[in-house]
Amino acid sequence: MKVLLVGATGTLGAAVNALLSTRHDVVTASRSGKTDLVVDITDPASIAAMYEQVGRVDAVACAAGGVPFKAIGDLAYDDVKGAALDKLVGQVELVRRGVDFVADRGSFTLISGILSSEGIPTGSMASMANGGVDAFVRGVSVELPRGQRINSISPTMLTESLAAYDTFFPGFPPADAAAAAMAYRRSVEGAQTGQTFRVGW
Amino acid sequence: MKVLLVGATGTLGAAVNALLSTRHDVVTASRSGKTDLVVDITDPASIAAMYEQVGRVDAVACAAGGVPFKAIGDLAYDDVKGAALDKLVGQVELVRRGVDFVADRGSFTLISGILSSEGIPTGSMASMANGGVDAFVRGVSVELPRGQRINSISPTMLTESLAAYDTFFPGFPPADAAAAAMAYRRSVEGAQTGQTFRVGW
Repeated sequence: MKVLLVGATGTLGAAVNALLSTRHDVVTASRSGKTDLVVDITDPASIAAMYEQVGRVDAVACAAGGVPFKAIGDLAYDDVKGAALDKLVGQVELVRRGVDFVADRGSFTLISGILSSEGIPTGSMASMANGGVDAFVRGVSVELPRGQRINSISPTMLTESLAAYDTFFPGFPPADAAAAAMAYRRSVEGAQTGQTFRVGW
Repeated sequence: MKVLLVGATGTLGAAVNALLSTRHDVVTASRSGKTDLVVDITDPASIAAMYEQVGRVDAVACAAGGVPFKAIGDLAYDDVKGAALDKLVGQVELVRRGVDFVADRGSFTLISGILSSEGIPTGSMASMANGGVDAFVRGVSVELPRGQRINSISPTMLTESLAAYDTFFPGFPPADAAAAAMAYRRSVEGAQTGQTFRVGW
């Protein structure tokens, strides 16, 4: 399959790339420019340009999308708006624009995370975005054309991120990025749609 | 209690107002201007001005927030952005701004809906917003100050909206707006936090 992987250079994206590249033709994209294509998912024109460059694909997999980690009293309106327009609307836009480029029975795989269901101090924007992504996946799955499928991957904290996030997730067992990459393979190569694949929780 | 009810003139908001007004001092707000205060939840300056006018309250209840109902192929980027900034970010902003105005052990009650969990054609933006609202509620509930609480109300299609929405929700048993209003009372007068109260499903 030809797989477009957005966010290919992050901790998670690199693991997804490592696994899927052994099995598929992976075209990588990220903000960094160290990938086949450059894309900023907060910029719809950038997403449109990426699809024009890549053309027809069998799968779109996303491991990109940021949110601020701040207490509710420290968030500014622009933080809230930014979280919504990045990890949530940015990924929705990948799907909206991608429908015309994804092959019959092709798939979209988005990233959410455990904070859709769990609360941690400073995590409300992650909760908001992750819950929105999972629900969008359930909702849009019933109307995607030509047998296209969509799922989300919802990992707990990654082992590779322990140093940075351990105190935010006290007592949460971590999962390896490689385990999350397996879930991407399950979504890309499997037959399910409208699902959220939890990883490590 | 002094309760600020945002979206007081809609089908749901009117039912909430009818019930809560028998028990509390309800200050109503809406875009229409037919209420005590005028507010547009998509405009953060409007929300800030509303709180300055109303002052200290014991509860904020919201029955406002719109999303477009369009198939994924008919949505424009501005529809997606608009859905995120209205029902989702607009309600988050009610909380972010409201924290300083809500009394100790006071509460926020937001509106989501059944499409957080169910998919219907044209419903993906409702799914996205509702899922975001419910997850934000779970997430932020652990860090609200001074014992403040937050819940969301998630009704199925309302009986009063059957004429407009019946074909969108084929075979979904409707629930009366009065039943949804009961859930608002449960959130305002109860002790739970971080919960989503389903109504009719």
